[in-house]
Formats: sequence, C-alpha cells, structure tokens
Amino acid sequence: MKEKVLIIGAGLCGTLLAIRMAQRGYQVELHEKRPDMRLEEMSAGRSINLALSNRGLKALGMVGMGEQIKKECIPMFGRMIHPKNGEHRLSKYSGRDGDYINSVSRGGLNISLLIEADSFKNLKVVFNSNCTHVDLKSATAQFKDQLTGEARKSQGDIVIGTDGAGSAVRRSLMSNTPELLFNYSQDFLRHGYKELSIPPTADDGWRIEKNALHIWPRGGMMVIALPNLDGSFTVTMFHPFEGEGGFNTLNTDEKVIEYFEAEYAEILRHMPDFLIDYHNNPTGTLGTIKCYPWQAHGKVLMMGDASHAVVPFYGQGMNASFEDVFVFDEILEEHEGDWKKVFTTFEDARAENTNAIADLAIDNFYEMRDHVANPVFIKKRNLEMELEQAFPDYYSKYSMVTFNENMPYSEAMRKGRLQDDLLMDICRKDKNKTLAEVYGMLKKIV
Amino acid sequence: MKEKVLIIGAGLCGTLLAIRMAQRGYQVELHEKRPDMRLEEMSAGRSINLALSNRGLKALGMVGMGEQIKKECIPMFGRMIHPKNGEHRLSKYSGRDGDYINSVSRGGLNISLLIEADSFKNLKVVFNSNCTHVDLKSATAQFKDQLTGEARKSQGDIVIGTDGAGSAVRRSLMSNTPELLFNYSQDFLRHGYKELSIPPTADDGWRIEKNALHIWPRGGMMVIALPNLDGSFTVTMFHPFEGEGGFNTLNTDEKVIEYFEAEYAEILRHMPDFLIDYHNNPTGTLGTIKCYPWQAHGKVLMMGDASHAVVPFYGQGMNASFEDVFVFDEILEEHEGDWKKVFTTFEDARAENTNAIADLAIDNFYEMRDHVANPVFIKKRNLEMELEQAFPDYYSKYSMVTFNENMPYSEAMRKGRLQDDLLMDICRKDKNKTLAEVYGMLKKIV
Repeated sequence: MKEKVLIIGAGLCGTLLAIRMAQRGYQVELHEKRPDMRLEEMSAGRSINLALSNRGLKALGMVGMGEQIKKECIPMFGRMIHPKNGEHRLSKYSGRDGDYINSVSRGGLNISLLIEADSFKNLKVVFNSNCTHVDLKSATAQFKDQLTGEARKSQGDIVIGTDGAGSAVRRSLMSNTPELLFNYSQDFLRHGYKELSIPPTADDGWRIEKNALHIWPRGGMMVIALPNLDGSFTVTMFHPFEGEGGFNTLNTDEKVIEYFEAEYAEILRHMPDFLIDYHNNPTGTLGTIKCYPWQAHGKVLMMGDASHAVVPFYGQGMNASFEDVFVFDEILEEHEGDWKKVFTTFEDARAENTNAIADLAIDNFYEMRDHVANPVFIKKRNLEMELEQAFPDYYSKYSMVTFNENMPYSEAMRKGRLQDDLLMDICRKDKNKTLAEVYGMLKKIV
Repeated sequence: MKEKVLIIGAGLCGTLLAIRMAQRGYQVELHEKRPDMRLEEMSAGRSINLALSNRGLKALGMVGMGEQIKKECIPMFGRMIHPKNGEHRLSKYSGRDGDYINSVSRGGLNISLLIEADSFKNLKVVFNSNCTHVDLKSATAQFKDQLTGEARKSQGDIVIGTDGAGSAVRRSLMSNTPELLFNYSQDFLRHGYKELSIPPTADDGWRIEKNALHIWPRGGMMVIALPNLDGSFTVTMFHPFEGEGGFNTLNTDEKVIEYFEAEYAEILRHMPDFLIDYHNNPTGTLGTIKCYPWQAHGKVLMMGDASHAVVPFYGQGMNASFEDVFVFDEILEEHEGDWKKVFTTFEDARAENTNAIADLAIDNFYEMRDHVANPVFIKKRNLEMELEQAFPDYYSKYSMVTFNENMPYSEAMRKGRLQDDLLMDICRKDKNKTLAEVYGMLKKIV
C-alpha cells in the first residue's frame, strides 16, 4: 500500500486531486468542512455556474471523466453583448468552429466528482471536518467536527490543502512567515457582485439565447448571465460598492428598481423575483490572492484557490485549479518517491502561470465592462476572428488562454499582450493591410 | 478636556505621536507590550542604530526636540566604500555642505522620547500591556498584562496603532477583510541580516572613520557599519539565507571564519568577539509590508511600520514614520473635530508616499550591494555631486529623498528615477557635455 495523502477541502480541485491520487494507489483521506452536498440543500447566491473550458476538460479527461461532464454542460459560443440602446450582438470567442466554453453547475460538477470519489476503496471522504491547524513538519492536521464539536487529528505522509481562498492550510504557512519567508498578497476590487436569476419559460425553455454568455456592459459596471440546463440563467451583477450605481447607494427598493429600469430594462423584465433575489443574496467581494512558497518542508502543499485565488472575469478560476492537478500529476509521474522534489518543482512551474492568469483576469474585468462596446475593440475582435479562420496556427489572446490548453498561461499572457497591442494599433489607425500582411506582422513580434 | 486617544505601541513613532497629541491637549493613553526600556537591559542584535535625516528631524522639531536629539547623533557625510581589493573611498551623500545623515541609537532616542512623554499630565504610558484585539466600531482595545496575565480593556474616542510590522491593530483590520476590502501584502527578500559589533579602541575612540556609513559591497551581499557615540560601530551583514555565502551555508565556525577571511578580512580584524556575536545574535528577515485602508470607521487608524514596513536600505523607515506624525498633525490642524475626515485624508495623502519609499528602499538594496563599486555608477555619483555644488536647486534622487524634507517621497521617486536614467545614460556613453548642458537636460525631463 502506498503512502497516506491527506487532502483538506473537497471542493472541485480537492475532489479531482483525491480521485487522481486514489487512481495512483495512495491511501487518500479527503476532509471537507461542509456537510455532504448530496444530502443538503445547496446554498444559493454564490457562483452557481462556471465556465468550463479546455484546461479544465483536459484534467477531467486525465481521470476519465471528460465525456461524462461534457453532458452536464451548455456550450457558449461567444459573448452576447447587450448595449443600453440598440440591438444585442454575438461576439464569438474564436474563429474556429470547435472552440467554445461550457456553462456548468458548480454544485452538479462537485457532486459528480464526489460520486466518482466514492468508487475508490482507498479514498475516504470525511465531511463536517473543519481543519483548524496543520503542523508543517509532521504533516498532521487538526480538525473540529462541525456536528459534535469534537477535536481530532490525522497524520499523513503529506498534506495537500485545496481549501479555497480562505484556506486554513495557508494560515498555517502564514503563521510560519519568517521561517518560510512567506510572501503573500490579497487585493480586492472596489467592486462587489450579487447573483440574481432568470427563471425558465413556462415550458422549461430559455428566455434569452441559450448558447452564449450574456453581457450588459455599462461602463464601469456590468451584468452577465450564464445558462443552466433547466432553462434558467444565473445572472451576476458586478457593481462598485460606493458611488453611482454602488451597492451601498442602491439601498431602497425604489432606487434599485429605478436604476435597473434605466440601465437594464431588457433584463429586468425577465426577472420576476428580482427584488427578492436582490435582498436575499449576499454581496460578495472580488479578490486576488497570490503567495509563495506553496509548500513547506516537502510535507505540506497548497493548490487551487488556496494558493492563487483570482477574480472570475476570465472564467479560468476552476480551469486553473484543475490544471494544477494535471501539472502536479505530470511532475509526480517524473519524481514519485521524492515529495520535496515534487512539491518544489510544482510550485516553481506553476506560480508564474497562476500569477499570469490572475493578472489577465483583472485585465478582462475592464475589457468586459468598458471595451466590448468600443468600435475599435469590436473591429479588432472581428479581425481576430478572420485571422483564426484563415490561419489555423493563429490564436488570439483569449483563444490561447481558453482553447490552447498546452500553452502555459504565462506564455499566453506575454504573446497575447504583444498581439493585442499590435492589432489595436492597426485597427485604431485604420491601416489598409491584407489579412496575410497582418498575420506576417503578428508572426514577427511574438 | 479633549477626547481620549488610545495609542498602541510606544516605539519611536507611537511615542512621538503621543507627545504631539498631548501637546494638543488630548487625553493620551499609550500602551506598550514590552517593559519600560529605561528599567531593563536592552535587547541586543536588532537595529541598534539608525540613520536619522531631514524628514525625521522635521517631525522632532515640531514637538521641540530637534536640537536635543541632534546632540545624540553622529553625522555621516557619505558612504565609505570598502572594495575587496584596493583602497576604501568616501562617496559623499550630497554636493551641499550642510547635507548629512545622522547615526543615532534606537534605544537612546526612544528613551529620550519616553522621558519627554512623562512631562505631560495628560499622557499616561502603560507598559507590559500587550494589545490582543481592537474592536473597530467602538474604538475599544483589549490588552493582556504581560506581568500578571490579567486581561483588561480600554475604550478611546479613537485608537491609533503604532505597533510596528507585526501590528495587532492591523490584525484586527485584517480580520474584517471583506467589510473593509482590506488589501495587504508582505514580501520578503531572500536575504536576511545579522548584527555584529566593532568595539571602541582602548581609549574609547573609533577604529575606522567615525563620520561615515561604511559599506563592504560584495556583489549580491554586503556588510555595513554605523558609528555609535561610545566609539563602537554596529555592523550588519546582509546575506542570502541559502547558497554561496548564505546563513544556512555558513553553518560551522570554520566555514564562517574562512568566508570572512576571504571576503571581509579588513573588518574581521576589528571584531574580536566576532564568533560570539555571530552565534548569539539572531538572523532577521527583511520584509516589505503594504496595506490599504489604514483606517476603519473613523475610529481606528494605523501609522508607522504597522501600515508600511520597509526594508532598511534607504535609511528611511524611522524617518517615514516620524513624517507620518508630521503629516497627520497638519491634517488634524485642518480638520480637527472630524476624525473620519482626518483619517481618510491622511491615508489618501500618505499611502502613495510610503509605497514609494518602500520601492526605493528595495532599489537601494541592489544599488548598495551591487552598483556602488561599478565605474559608471561612480562617475554618475561624482557628476551628481558636481551638479549639486553648481546648481543649488538641483537635487539627486538620494538628496530629494533624504535632504529635501518638503518634497513628497512619491515625487522624489518619480523625478529621481528620470534623472538617474538620464545621468546613467550620459555616463555610460561618455558624452562630452558641460555641467550646464547636463543641468539643462535634467530640467527638461522632470
């Protein structure tokens, strides 16, 4: 029997990792603070659906679940832009036909992973088990049973923390700051988010275009919507906390309704329960977390949101966390038997890439709310579609990040930014270039 | 009687602030975790002396202590560079005669401030009082008495945290991260420091030049020394933790001695107790802390290292903290009676400048250890001296930061970097320019 691997956090990343480690024959003990979500009603108002794309699918494919999960998905072929005045318009994600992203239920996906996890005899899931502390040198985690209040501990050969942005494992590294030279940053946008909902039609259909990610960009703020299998859409508004249109300013029913009627009249008529959702659902914060190192003493490692929480605007949070598992598995394959080597190789390989997707996600916030309605930007996106159709090896920045799962995020960022600068320049100056000329220029700079 | 101001931390910044607030007639309660340093033996091995310069002196002048403290100082007119092979050489800090920095004892300065604080009837200092938590909305701080173990609390009209890089007040803001959108970063160099000592001569004189800050730059690492009034020097080595010359590599007496004989032979012969100091004194970390906001609800504010810890390489940590008190006092003068206005105006005015000095201090680490021995850099510093002598309104970056106390750090950084780029370019290309031509070029870019 192989070594004991203690995994803290049975969210998407932790459960996928647990499955993979079980497939490799380790004794896996997976602890989750919350109750078994298969038995409880799901908590509403928080990231109900997510965009699954190539990097995530590649990692699901590794454990043999790719095809199964694709059945739970709704393809989204582009951004449906809804201007305040005027017709909505589809801006495709890629010029290639096979490239699309997938709307998937966070809860549904997590449940599918937990069911798969149950099929392994060498994988035990412990729910209601709240990690309070990890001893870094002995790989021992302390837990509080959320039902009985009882304290218990468990020792692994290694501990891997996949316990999200508020990670308890990270807190244990942080409390050893001087010894580990633990670098850490948390950075919040002055914007928050609130989830709302568009229900299905009477005959369980979709009230607006099903196969798109909808955006109502309003300069400095926006509302988006992603489709669900049951005909509903999960709607998320991203607004500042303070000032014009701010959550703290829209503090009476009258003000909220007046504001939505002026700015989002089209979507408001699809939301019969608007005010109920607006009041019941919490206003969430949007933060980026970066840290380094991710491991201590070859005994404790973090991955997923625990080591790199990102804002949601590139739709890559879950995909990056799933990619962590894929990259970890590749490195484990090469260095199995030497955890310290595995852990340090992993953090070295990965931090640069998760820093890149964190920065790209911030960039995309400004792009989605401010630029998608800009004529030069629209021209540039159209040019990129033409390039992708004409030249199979050309990938836009968005396509490199989203559809080119074999290119590291950091390379996608570097190349993508150079391409964007050049293309925006061309579109701004209205130069008369053939597609082949533009393609040649792009080839030269990257 | 005016309102009650609770100040947490009676270090340099907190004690100066307490004096100023007492001068303004507030009821001041100053809590300090440690015992009264006037009664205890001082802890060795940690920042025994500091460089006091214009910004710090301006703030001491505000409370009427400038002249008194100058008597405790040793002027340092420049960097005495000690190359590995060859003669040492003084590189002056400024081309103006009156510009110099001052070596001062941290403990001595703190004691002078505490003695001054004792002269106010409306200022009470509570030692051995360890702040464990601050309630942000009620301005109530909880303390543990370090002698009796007893818990107590104190409520102020406001609380100001001046409790240093490991601030408990900041921890209380941090635990309200989502509500305050509390941004935070801690960033450690891969280098640490260790303090050593050169004793006085037999007749209480200085073994090496008294009026200079000594540097033994060794590319990637360095040793420095600052003079003390008693004839001794406080010596600090800045070396990496790992690798060649690293603290973890120099792990036997033989290796340490061999290393110092090869690299620092000159200084080694001045340190009879070298090995004792090397073993007894801790190896410290070097970190930068930034955060925002600095205040909560107009009730709690942080200043000094609590809100902006910097690495020591610009000699500005204490000066920046003293400047905090000066700027705070100016803003208080304008908005007295409205704490929220005072606090938010202060954080807005100040964070940009303390971020600048944090970044400049990191830059200076590389300059001190790597560049001061570079011929182009030496040429550029000489050119700057000539410019400062010839043109009274020209200030080098170092002079703007250190000797131009009326220019904000952020402006000094912006102008200074532009000047440095131009001057390095001129010196590198060996252009034949008159001093007046160079001055004209500098005027144009800033």
